Amino acid sequence: MTAQPENHIIEDGWVRRVVLTPPALSDNTSDADRLVEGLKKEFETDRVTIDLLLLKKLPFLLREWGYRAGCVVLKDGRGWQVVGLFPWEDPKTPLGVAIDLGTSRVVIRLVNLLSGDVLGEQAFDNPQISIGPDILARVHFSEETQGLDELNRLIIDDLNQNIEKLSNSCGKNPENIYLVSLAGNTTMTHLFMGLDPRWIIREPYIPVINRPGMLRASDLGVAVNPSGRIYIHPNIGSYFGGDLMAGILYSGMHNREETAILVDVGTNAEVVLGNRNWLVACAGAAGPALEGGVTRMGMLAGPGVIDKVAIHPGEGTFELHTIGNAQPKGICGSGLIDLAAHLFLSGMLDIRGKFDPNVCGARLKQTADMPFLVVVPAGQSATGKDLFVSQADIDSLIRSKAAMYTILETITASVGMLPADLSTFFVAGTFGSFIDPASAISIGMLPDLDWDAFKVLGNSSLEGAAQLLTRPGNLDEIDCIRDRITYLELNVNQEFMNRFSAAKFLPHTDPSLFPSVAVSRNNNLSNP
Amino acid sequence: MTAQPENHIIEDGWVRRVVLTPPALSDNTSDADRLVEGLKKEFETDRVTIDLLLLKKLPFLLREWGYRAGCVVLKDGRGWQVVGLFPWEDPKTPLGVAIDLGTSRVVIRLVNLLSGDVLGEQAFDNPQISIGPDILARVHFSEETQGLDELNRLIIDDLNQNIEKLSNSCGKNPENIYLVSLAGNTTMTHLFMGLDPRWIIREPYIPVINRPGMLRASDLGVAVNPSGRIYIHPNIGSYFGGDLMAGILYSGMHNREETAILVDVGTNAEVVLGNRNWLVACAGAAGPALEGGVTRMGMLAGPGVIDKVAIHPGEGTFELHTIGNAQPKGICGSGLIDLAAHLFLSGMLDIRGKFDPNVCGARLKQTADMPFLVVVPAGQSATGKDLFVSQADIDSLIRSKAAMYTILETITASVGMLPADLSTFFVAGTFGSFIDPASAISIGMLPDLDWDAFKVLGNSSLEGAAQLLTRPGNLDEIDCIRDRITYLELNVNQEFMNRFSAAKFLPHTDPSLFPSVAVSRNNNLSNP
Repeated sequence: MTAQPENHIIEDGWVRRVVLTPPALSDNTSDADRLVEGLKKEFETDRVTIDLLLLKKLPFLLREWGYRAGCVVLKDGRGWQVVGLFPWEDPKTPLGVAIDLGTSRVVIRLVNLLSGDVLGEQAFDNPQISIGPDILARVHFSEETQGLDELNRLIIDDLNQNIEKLSNSCGKNPENIYLVSLAGNTTMTHLFMGLDPRWIIREPYIPVINRPGMLRASDLGVAVNPSGRIYIHPNIGSYFGGDLMAGILYSGMHNREETAILVDVGTNAEVVLGNRNWLVACAGAAGPALEGGVTRMGMLAGPGVIDKVAIHPGEGTFELHTIGNAQPKGICGSGLIDLAAHLFLSGMLDIRGKFDPNVCGARLKQTADMPFLVVVPAGQSATGKDLFVSQADIDSLIRSKAAMYTILETITASVGMLPADLSTFFVAGTFGSFIDPASAISIGMLPDLDWDAFKVLGNSSLEGAAQLLTRPGNLDEIDCIRDRITYLELNVNQEFMNRFSAAKFLPHTDPSLFPSVAVSRNNNLSNP
Repeated sequence: MTAQPENHIIEDGWVRRVVLTPPALSDNTSDADRLVEGLKKEFETDRVTIDLLLLKKLPFLLREWGYRAGCVVLKDGRGWQVVGLFPWEDPKTPLGVAIDLGTSRVVIRLVNLLSGDVLGEQAFDNPQISIGPDILARVHFSEETQGLDELNRLIIDDLNQNIEKLSNSCGKNPENIYLVSLAGNTTMTHLFMGLDPRWIIREPYIPVINRPGMLRASDLGVAVNPSGRIYIHPNIGSYFGGDLMAGILYSGMHNREETAILVDVGTNAEVVLGNRNWLVACAGAAGPALEGGVTRMGMLAGPGVIDKVAIHPGEGTFELHTIGNAQPKGICGSGLIDLAAHLFLSGMLDIRGKFDPNVCGARLKQTADMPFLVVVPAGQSATGKDLFVSQADIDSLIRSKAAMYTILETITASVGMLPADLSTFFVAGTFGSFIDPASAISIGMLPDLDWDAFKVLGNSSLEGAAQLLTRPGNLDEIDCIRDRITYLELNVNQEFMNRFSAAKFLPHTDPSLFPSVAVSRNNNLSNP
């Protein structure tokens, strides 16, 4: 048998087409081995197998198609496996799905496996929210009788429904989905796989698995083609998950000569620093303040939520932008960072992060325990009540931003660098993409770099997951990234605490670290 | 983490034990990757994975066992897979099952995976006999609606019942069976896997698969441990199955310097010739006569069936041996070969295979169409009727033995040898083990070699399958055997027909090929 040189249509994709010599008395190799031989020539490997379910259809299809066939051929690190067959004439049949499995939100994207064309995208709340809002609550629930099963069933069911809905809305059949690429944090991945997450949250914080690899989708209950596979992006520990690994892949920082940093800002700050030669990663709790979760007026992004704030220097008037331009009803994380930055730049907050009554004026009110600042008076808010931030809210935000900066200082120091030495700063994750770097710099949460050093990656977890759908080489690349990462355990020692204390000022005890902020504030304060 | 040097207890088996360093803050590798790392050191491979079902139990078991564990680790050609976990203290827990899947009879053997000890064996009729006695009938039935499913279900169900019965009788639980090694002919293997066999019996005789390899037992419905695997021995075509491949493995002929032949005698004669450098195989129809299937008195071995025959030279008295020493009621294949041999040696059959009335005497009767010879008179038989062989029965046997010899001549000629050049002649298969080589030589079915050249292997299919249960190296060895075999398509051309015609005499047209037979017969005839 021979595979013609024009067999393949793309060199490095998962979709291949082969022309086989039909069998004869003098060439009586079986159908399966004939196909395998044809594919081996393409892959230059001796390890090609065919999924059992396909074997049952193979002889009929090969004869119907005159021994020309399209194949979806996946690699699982141990070899290549044929998981799909389709007519030669229709190479655009096979589809793939990328999944960003977040604690709060899940995003799925339907992609053509051959062309990489995005056919559609859909987002939905992680249904496990009904059990508990965060990782901790869900892990505790998983320890109850049938708890893990229920958490697992919730996400699998919703995922299947959404995959079907998305496919239908694109005029496609989930039966044609042969590869799913899933990236999520370590706990979400465990719950998705039905693996017990209880040791993730307990010292010494051990996941069940770091590298799930390529699995049969049906083994996990994922309703795509019964021979389809699911690749689950690896984690490097309980607090540095596959979502970050996919983000690194998408950023390309692991292939760059120049050292860059990638940061996923959230309740947990996950940071990776490095270049084509080395990568250092760490993760630490920044607290929920950055995401707006602790303030009285904090809420997730949605209509009427304040996402941008500016304060006119001197006049002290607030310019607020709300999502959908609706009447304001609350503030999201990026809005809160904006607000704090402008309160500081306008002098309403001093360098200790305390409200300055002389500057705040009538906006500053006082309850029994503490001062608070009215952001939106009752008459202008959607709720009919004052929207305000309290001193406690600001203190909490400052602890979070200080933790974030301390983590950045610690990881850069581990390789003899300073945060200010960085020339490329990737901001990963959906939340990060809404942050205004200028504001984050102003409060000393991010280092004082040129604004164009910040590269917002958007949903880098989804993007990284989607890349794998058309690039088999990504498998080795991901392994390579994972093996190259040195994980830095953040020891909360005296040095860390010293750095943290110094970072609890606005923007920092050492203003020389933030020269641009000093300039802006001085300009504001001196030119009212 | 470290795997102690004393980790493994046997070097090349499927059963391993590892000691892992328990996790710590400074060593937070996941449980699965920790086990994989420990095993990699043993296997010197970077491809070790853990079955998904085991992953769910792994963290509990490792903690319960203090990070010491026994593992069943199988290789599937692409890498190693952990399919079983057991306490360190009890390495004899894991079991394996070898299966000889015959068209008529199935034999299963329960083996300890660590020690190789045989715990028990059980045989049962292939339940597909109820559908059809032979391959052809079953393949035709498989083409009817649900026919393939029914054939598949029959064998899987009976196999599962017998595996359970055998396990129970040995005080074992099928749950502890992690590896099944199955050898059978190509059609039986296809029906077992649920693969359509229709093209096996139709030119150009193409199986669906040659190398099924290592599959999940549960995917095939085999009721052993849910993570257990089944290895299905490869075939080299529709008429040279995994049973023969297992037989070659068991014979060891592929490792010998000296050229040997291996023959499975039956309705189909399967022959392989070779040594450590090369192997040639062929298969051809010998007809059912050798197995006693066509004679009026022919039957399968069982109580009262004549399995050995001797005839006193001169006196012409018959000495018959029956299975269980019961009254004779029929004759099996080996008995028929004995009978024909002694009829010839005593002169009752001439060299053309025709009854000689002068020598047969009163035993020879005549119907309207043909003569027949009474082997057991009515008064002495279990049926109360004469047991006889007709001239047509003898003619049929002679065609079969001539086909057998012609195949041997053809395959040896293909490498420039003569059958008489062979010094080792392996007789494979259960039927072959009952044949008296002297008788087979006398009728010219087997070449005139020294009797000790014949090595009876017994159920070589079962033995070969069982070897794999304790020898991982067999996997590569089997691939190596398979790749080394040149399959010789038996063309029924003029040369073949000439050889066949010459072989239709007793023992052969050319008596010089069978010098010992001439001596025996002459002695008999000249010394009555």
